[in-house]
Formats: sequence, structure tokens, C-alpha cells
Amino acid sequence: MFFFFPKFISYIEINYCSTNYINETLFSPDDSNHVGEQPMRMTLAEPKYLKESIAVISELVAETQFKITTDAIQIVAMDPANVAMVVFKLLSSTFVEYDVKQETIITINLNSLKQVLRRAKPADQLTLEQEENKLKIILKGTSTRTFHLPIIEAEEREQKVPDLKFAATVTTESSTLNDAVEDVDIIGESVTFAAEEGKLTISSAGDLSKAKVEIPADEETKIVVEGKQKSKYSIEYLKKMILGGKLADKAIVKFSNDYPLRLEYAVLNKMQLAFILAPRVDND
Amino acid sequence: MFFFFPKFISYIEINYCSTNYINETLFSPDDSNHVGEQPMRMTLAEPKYLKESIAVISELVAETQFKITTDAIQIVAMDPANVAMVVFKLLSSTFVEYDVKQETIITINLNSLKQVLRRAKPADQLTLEQEENKLKIILKGTSTRTFHLPIIEAEEREQKVPDLKFAATVTTESSTLNDAVEDVDIIGESVTFAAEEGKLTISSAGDLSKAKVEIPADEETKIVVEGKQKSKYSIEYLKKMILGGKLADKAIVKFSNDYPLRLEYAVLNKMQLAFILAPRVDND
Amino acid sequence: MFFFFPKFISYIEINYCSTNYINETLFSPDDSNHVGEQPMRMTLAEPKYLKESIAVISELVAETQFKITTDAIQIVAMDPANVAMVVFKLLSSTFVEYDVKQETIITINLNSLKQVLRRAKPADQLTLEQEENKLKIILKGTSTRTFHLPIIEAEEREQKVPDLKFAATVTTESSTLNDAVEDVDIIGESVTFAAEEGKLTISSAGDLSKAKVEIPADEETKIVVEGKQKSKYSIEYLKKMILGGKLADKAIVKFSNDYPLRLEYAVLNKMQLAFILAPRVDND
Repeated sequence: MFFFFPKFISYIEINYCSTNYINETLFSPDDSNHVGEQPMRMTLAEPKYLKESIAVISELVAETQFKITTDAIQIVAMDPANVAMVVFKLLSSTFVEYDVKQETIITINLNSLKQVLRRAKPADQLTLEQEENKLKIILKGTSTRTFHLPIIEAEEREQKVPDLKFAATVTTESSTLNDAVEDVDIIGESVTFAAEEGKLTISSAGDLSKAKVEIPADEETKIVVEGKQKSKYSIEYLKKMILGGKLADKAIVKFSNDYPLRLEYAVLNKMQLAFILAPRVDND
Repeated sequence: MFFFFPKFISYIEINYCSTNYINETLFSPDDSNHVGEQPMRMTLAEPKYLKESIAVISELVAETQFKITTDAIQIVAMDPANVAMVVFKLLSSTFVEYDVKQETIITINLNSLKQVLRRAKPADQLTLEQEENKLKIILKGTSTRTFHLPIIEAEEREQKVPDLKFAATVTTESSTLNDAVEDVDIIGESVTFAAEEGKLTISSAGDLSKAKVEIPADEETKIVVEGKQKSKYSIEYLKKMILGGKLADKAIVKFSNDYPLRLEYAVLNKMQLAFILAPRVDND
Repeated sequence: MFFFFPKFISYIEINYCSTNYINETLFSPDDSNHVGEQPMRMTLAEPKYLKESIAVISELVAETQFKITTDAIQIVAMDPANVAMVVFKLLSSTFVEYDVKQETIITINLNSLKQVLRRAKPADQLTLEQEENKLKIILKGTSTRTFHLPIIEAEEREQKVPDLKFAATVTTESSTLNDAVEDVDIIGESVTFAAEEGKLTISSAGDLSKAKVEIPADEETKIVVEGKQKSKYSIEYLKKMILGGKLADKAIVKFSNDYPLRLEYAVLNKMQLAFILAPRVDND
């Protein structure tokens, strides 16, 4: 059993830019054009969407690029083993203040960022600023807390989200999906998603044991599928991805026969957290 | 200090059957008589009694025989060190459906079973079936989850519950007993139970420290004792056994001078979970 | 970076008594004058103040002397690394019974004592007695639990609390202080306290990251300071000391430029738990 990389990798275009964008364009100490002007300032009244998303993403990716445009903060990142991709977008409409004059790309260690964000209380106001080669995070509650994290000088490697067509789309409660993945986790290391008219089946098998969860289409669960679709994935990755259920009540799962799976959590006009997971294919 | 095996072991008759019952009688693939007929099907509306009991028993025994009769599901098992015995009975009256045509003995890994049962939510309906050489467990809630666990081919070794006579019987709140064992656990590795008219004393001693809990006879605690009775037991085992307090509000403790202890949790017409623990005797 | 011991140590007078007080005066088996009389008996209706204090102190000191006078139970102890001192006083007025005829000094292992006290429920009555060379602790609730812990024969080494003058005094909510220390803990190993008119700043810095918490003077936070005061301390020690916040809503923090810090939690007429922490001074 192995991960079917070559096929999946072909879905993804990776752009390498030879110039070190961060260093040369924005943060070089002698680049006097940019010193003195504030490249950006963004304030969230509810730190939750950023805090919880980064906590989930940091389970898959240790450090990543943030692309900050005039519309949104975005992450498109691949996990180190090239098995899962995360696509995160926090829309400018989520912010009470969003002052971004030009597109900026910064690389940040997600574990450090997660630890800072974990200190944000629900009622805190969270402001992000760039200060020379640091990301400045201000948490304002009864006291004001200011954190500076280094912006990492990284080779820019913009990931593109692969253009995938899925033959099965299931919309269900996040908690139903989480329960199912945790149910089959008892038995095996890989999990099979199978959809047919009216039913999603999530299953796993060990040497002698097996587990199967049937989720019927109903008020809470919508299933749109062409014929029967079935594919197998790593349960270890799925367990990290379903943590996104903290952010949205509904999960959207898309897959096709022996094809990547896309799992999406979205909050209208606020954020979208999606994952793409390579299928696992038996080599026998 | 050592465990007084020889004396205790003599209380217990162990029956070895030379035939491999499971394999030959029920599950042999070419035994066409039994293929096609369903040997059993049992459904619980409250999975709690099975779930919690197996969680407790699995602390003492890794794999065990279940004897499924027309009246009850029973376990009689010895821990690997031969220090503690567990006697469990889940009566057919606890089940909403109990279809057992012939007595069946199956050996199951309790850790696997515990993990499956842990997935049962309080409102789930739990069904047990035998399907060839697997135990099939169905959890029915908003979704339906099906697990298959292997039935282990084990030499049949039916344990008999020793016939013991006790000179002290104490009925008390499970929580009172749990507190007392946890209290004396701070100090020592073995715990002394001493009963006399009107009082149960649970104590332990280390090199320089000691702990003593006195539980007087009262509305909640009934003590019936011939003279004074006193015996010492392993606290490590007792701590696993008192987990049974999750199942019943009352605990019944029986012992005599330097004699095994019996601890019982019972729910009328539903289940009984009892333990027999060998005494610890000082070798000086 | 190192701890500035020599300067700090000079604040502290250590008195060594050559006689082994405990052994010779009170607990010697052939010292018949003291056998038979009860040296002390003290009962608390709320075990909380003793229980929580010992839990906090045991994080810094493994075994310590208790000085039991006719007014109070007191601890003055230095941590093994000589970086932090703890000063604890539980006043006789906290007790419902306080029968101490003569000043007594006993040395007790705090981990053992903590484990016994942890067994005290909020409604238990807690009694301390001395019984020959043991400390007897009685917890009375629905059952009566009695523990005997050895009184350790230790060389008497009475610590004196250094006489310190502080240029900054900040009174704030315990929770505000705790949050600030936990905030800056993300980044560094040492924390800087800086006070000026109207503002306390708590900060830390790593190689590339930094964290800063500003606590303004307001209704909850009173700041009295001569000019600007600033000093650096070990965050590891501070994290253990702020556990005292469980005992009192208010924390009093005192420090001066590159000088020890004093942190105090007090409950009027009941108890006082204070810590003195050596400053950390950069050696470059």
C-alpha cells in the first residue's frame, strides 16, 4: 500500500520564483522606499476564525506563506510529505479594519503563530501589522499584549490549487463526519469513502477486523453522485483535517474513484478552510 | 511479602476441554450445518452496562471467553498473574432482543471490544451478532456503524468460580469505598481491610507513613461480621476493581482473615460484576 | 545570562543552629519529659488555605521546616537553587481549634503532605497533631481518615526573610498577573518587569521574537513607583509562584532596578503566601 504521488502531483502546478520577494522587495534594510510606510494593518473583532484555523493548519504544515491581498489573507500550502494540501482564505469582510495597499507575501512559523493566537481571548481585538521584518500581533482586552514574530526569509514557492473535478459531493454535519472518521479509526490506518445514490459509506479494515459507518442522505446530509464512487485515504491525515469542524457546522466532502478528496469548511463572507488529500492506492 | 497463590488456587477448579469447541463446532468453514443459520442476535437499548463493564474488565484481562447462554452473557476470567478473578453476568432481561438458540462460547480481545464499545453513545442501540468467525457489533443512532471483530481460536478453559465462605460482609456506597482506597493509596502498596462490629477499617502502611480510613456502620453502610476479620490485598488490583463503582451505587465487600476478598457491583435484573482478589500475606 | 546570587544572597542571613533541635528537644525516644503530653492540636474548618498553599510551595521546595508558634504556622524556605524564597504564614485565627503550648519546629516532606491534603474535600474538617515523631493528619467528613507522616530529622537551619526596600509596588488582580506571565512565556525564558507612573510592562524576548504586556493603572491595578524601575526574572520560577493566585484575588508585586521581586498573596486575618525571587542579570 502506498500513496499515489505521481498521479496526484500532476494535478498541481508549482511555481518557483527565483527572486527572493520578501527580502528584496519589502524588508531589505536599505530599501528606503518601503521603510516608513506601513505595509498593512488588519483588525479582527473575533479572533476565533484566525485562531482556530491556524491551530488546525499547523497540524499539517510547520511554516507557510501568507499571501495578503486587498481582498483576503490566503494560505495555499502542501504538507512536507506532499500528501495533503491546505487552502485557507480569511476574507477582508471578516475584519473590522483591513488596510492593505499592496499584495504582500510573508512566511511565518505556524507553531509560533499558533501559540500567540492561543493567548487571544474570545473578546480580544486582534490586530496584525508588519513592522520591518517582523509580524506584529496586538491583542487588546483589559490589557494590551504585543507580540513580534520573525518573518522568515524563504524562497518563494507559490502553490497553485489543482483544478479537480469530483463525481461525488456530500454535504453533512461536521460532527457526523468527525464521528464517522473516529469510529473507523479504531480499526485501520486507511479509510474508504464510498458514495452512491442516497448513501455515503465510510469504512476501514485491519487484518481481521473491520468497521463501517453508513450515513444515509436526509435533511442534514445531501449526496450528489454519478453512479458509485469509491476511494481510500490516510486516516492519520483525515483526523487532522476534520479538526476544521470547530469552525463550521457543515462539512463538504468531494471525491471520485481513486482520486483526491476535498474537504471544505466555510463560513459565508468570512472564511473558507479546505483540504485536498491524495488517495491511497493498494499496490497489489 | 508475596501473594499467597497455592492456597488461593486450591479454591479454584480449572476445567480444560481438549476439544477446540469454537473451531470445530461453530466456525469451521467446511462445517456447512452452521453456515447460513444465525447463531445469535442480542440488542441492548442502553449500551452502558456492557460498555462500562468491558472497560473495567479489560483493565484486568486482555482476552477472555464469553459464554452466551439462553439466560445471560457471562465472563469468568482470571488475570494473567492469577491474583484476581472477574465474574460478569449480563442478564437476558437487560436486552430488548435476546435471540440465543444454543449455548455458545467465543473468545474476544477485550481491548478491541472496549474500543468499539467506547464509540457507543448513550442513546445508541447496540446489537451483537455472530457472523462466521467474527463478532459483529452494530451501533444504531443517527448513523449506523458496524464493526467486525475476530473471534479468537483459543483452547477452551472454563474457569469455575471458587466456592468461598466469608466471615465479614460490608455493603456501602461505591463512592465511599472508592474514596477509602484512593485515600490509603497515597501511602502503601497493600491495603488492609479490617471489620469488627460497627466498623470497617481500611488502612495501609509504608516504611514510615501510614493511612487509615474508618467507615462506621450507619444508614448507608451495613456491616455483618463474626468477631474481627482482617486481611491484606494488593492496592494496584483494588484500584482497577473499584472502577466497577461506575455501574452501581452500592458495593458489597466480603472477606475473612487472610482470605480472598470478593467485591460485587450489581444492578437488579440486569447485571452483576464481581471480583475475587487473592490475599497478600507477609512472609516474615 | 546568570542569576545574580552573590548580591542577592547578601540580603539573606542564614542562621545555623548547631544543636539538632527536633531530635534532642522533642522527639528523642528517651526524652521522657515530652512523651505523653500532646505538643499541639490544630483544626481547620476549611482545609483550602493549607491544602492550596502546600500544593504551590511544594513546586519550589521538596521538604521544609514548619515553625509552629502560638500565633501561626509558618514556613520560610529557600528553593534548592537558592533563587526563590517562600514565606508562608497561616494565622491561628484561621483555625477553629488552635492548641499550641510551645513553639515547635518540624520538618516534613512537602510532596507527601501535598498528597495527603489533596484527599481533603472542601467540607472536611482537618486536624493536625504531633504524635511522637509523626505528624498526624485527620480528615473528618462522612468517614474519618487518619494519616501519619514522618517528621524528618533535619539539621535546623532557620531562614530569615531578607529586609528589602522596593521602589515599585503594583497591586493587581491575580488573574491579570497570571495572564501576563503566561502571555510572555510563549517567547522567552526570562521576563522583564518595568514600572513607571501609570503603567506596568511585563515583557520577554527570544532570539527573533518578543512579547510585551502593558497593564495600565486603573480601578483594579494600583501602581506606586519612584521614577522608572526595571528588572528581569526567571519565567520558570514565576510560573510556579503565580499558582498562588488560587488563594487570593489580588496579587502584590514589588521590585526595583535589578533587584529581587516580591510577590504576595494574602487573605486578611487568615494567611499570607509570599515569594522573593532573585533578579536575573545579563553578563554581557
